[in-house]
Amino acid sequence: MQVKGKSYETIWMEEHKVHMIEQNYLPFEFKIYSSNNYRETCHAIKTMIIRGAGAIGAAAGFAMAQAAMEANKADYQDFIKKAKNEIEATRPTARNLFAATEKVYRAALISKEEAIKSASEVAEKDKADSKRIGELGNELIKDGDSIETHCNAGWLAFVDHGTALAPIYLAKKSGKNVFVYVDETRPRSQGARLTAWELRNENIQHAIIPDNAGAHLMSLGKIDLIIVGADRIAANGDVANKIGTLEKAIAAKYYNIPFYVAAPLSTFDFNCPNGKRIPIEERDQEEVLFQEGPNGKGQLEKILVASPGSMAINPAFDVTPAGLITGIITEKGIIKPDFESIQRLNND
Amino acid sequence: MQVKGKSYETIWMEEHKVHMIEQNYLPFEFKIYSSNNYRETCHAIKTMIIRGAGAIGAAAGFAMAQAAMEANKADYQDFIKKAKNEIEATRPTARNLFAATEKVYRAALISKEEAIKSASEVAEKDKADSKRIGELGNELIKDGDSIETHCNAGWLAFVDHGTALAPIYLAKKSGKNVFVYVDETRPRSQGARLTAWELRNENIQHAIIPDNAGAHLMSLGKIDLIIVGADRIAANGDVANKIGTLEKAIAAKYYNIPFYVAAPLSTFDFNCPNGKRIPIEERDQEEVLFQEGPNGKGQLEKILVASPGSMAINPAFDVTPAGLITGIITEKGIIKPDFESIQRLNND
Repeated sequence: MQVKGKSYETIWMEEHKVHMIEQNYLPFEFKIYSSNNYRETCHAIKTMIIRGAGAIGAAAGFAMAQAAMEANKADYQDFIKKAKNEIEATRPTARNLFAATEKVYRAALISKEEAIKSASEVAEKDKADSKRIGELGNELIKDGDSIETHCNAGWLAFVDHGTALAPIYLAKKSGKNVFVYVDETRPRSQGARLTAWELRNENIQHAIIPDNAGAHLMSLGKIDLIIVGADRIAANGDVANKIGTLEKAIAAKYYNIPFYVAAPLSTFDFNCPNGKRIPIEERDQEEVLFQEGPNGKGQLEKILVASPGSMAINPAFDVTPAGLITGIITEKGIIKPDFESIQRLNND
Repeated sequence: MQVKGKSYETIWMEEHKVHMIEQNYLPFEFKIYSSNNYRETCHAIKTMIIRGAGAIGAAAGFAMAQAAMEANKADYQDFIKKAKNEIEATRPTARNLFAATEKVYRAALISKEEAIKSASEVAEKDKADSKRIGELGNELIKDGDSIETHCNAGWLAFVDHGTALAPIYLAKKSGKNVFVYVDETRPRSQGARLTAWELRNENIQHAIIPDNAGAHLMSLGKIDLIIVGADRIAANGDVANKIGTLEKAIAAKYYNIPFYVAAPLSTFDFNCPNGKRIPIEERDQEEVLFQEGPNGKGQLEKILVASPGSMAINPAFDVTPAGLITGIITEKGIIKPDFESIQRLNND
């Protein structure tokens, strides 16, 4: 991806340091956060300096490799096991986090060199998978389509390319006219802030819409296709994704609009029988009650956007039942969201 | 309604002045805005100093009476006709605005005294209707119910009592335990700001939720009942209400949760055959892109909450088809949302 004419990835490792685009300041400030050790990388995941399924996975893999580098010979095994637990405790929903941590942990049991190699493979595979998802998803897009997306499943949510946005980027590159309706995605506004920022970087026509406006636009026939990402996919095809995805899927079904999920195999939890078993992260109510952004003078201000003294509830994800999903775009093909198709992927 | 121990109505007229609670500063500042002439009252409607179906109706009636008082004998008829057009141009969706303007205009054709009397009747009737809606709606609420509501259809949206919230206030007074899930209601956040503020004034347990969280809570069985207001109801029972209402209604249908609309007869447009014919107001994109509220020092700040340079779309209302609505709570009874039941209301 290009930012101000320079080529970037969302996250990368150099020696013992992990560098990442600081997403809490985007789109107002473009900064790189550099983490010196696995604990700082955990902090970055927890505070959403880095967020998005694939990017969290890459960060978790790098954190595990950092832990292997930091460990002393004497208590190497204990240290990396403890680090694994800490990394896994940062955010409970994204499957990629657990897949990456597990893989790099196993490599770390052999040696720290293996851990570093394994973490870099996780990141490289994430890039390659996203690229392939873009190619396959592009085939679903017709010239002139208007596409709705929720949250951010673009470059910034992965190491590069993205999932839900990758097909849109490729559609544009292959000469198709596309228009994107970007769900604001309260409370963290990843749509209004990150997806809109990415689309503008790619010169793709788009409009931010309040999360409330999705069904209205569908009722007017303005949405041809919906593509979203995923944080975890159960063995039966139920999909956990950013809160609000479920509402869009129900509305899309009501209006008979194709609803696609784009995600690499690393997002599938083959051992999780259905969506009811996916843990849903509850985040701090302050994310709902306050909002941050630059004022007229360009200074970042945090303001109260609710009635003082009222509490808020802030579930970060919801589960969309497989029955509401038209198909899942994976790097191995576009599949039906059912047990058999997902088992076939797993066994391939 | 009680505010800081003092009894208030949302809007009232004293001689040629119309006083109203300034809703753009709520809940952070409680101020009264006083309008000296019909043009200032139009401004108050347009800028949402006063908002909500019934309150807009009362304001429009008072504005029409102000116009009658301001008119010279020489061009009385021309003046009040022109004023009527201006009042009707303030906001296109709320039916109550047109009903009130028409009624008071006809009275004004007789005399300015008749106009004043008629405007005050509009406001008094709004209060009485809301009170009755509260009584009828209360019968739908069981002890221990959790109720979701969208936007603000409380005191502040009417002269007093409200519609969607009136049954909840009465349920609490009659000793029932109730919990209210308050949809934030972006972009203007009338839920987080106004409904939460009202509920806190009435000591009713509640939590603000992001608009994205409704279907998720429904899927977990946490919502027993949904009650919303209406801005215009067509002759076939289609309901125009705050943007996002449609999504909740579709989700409620999917989860088989009762979905009620509470509105007085003045909200019904008996000449409008269906929801497709209801004009939907498009408001300024700035309402989506910026948000205002107090910072840590209590100073009101306006901040950018989206990626700079991206545009937004801001439809203020959507239309919920009658088929998704369980019933409409009116001052004449709870009716089915169909042509026959609505005709019967009209003929009563």
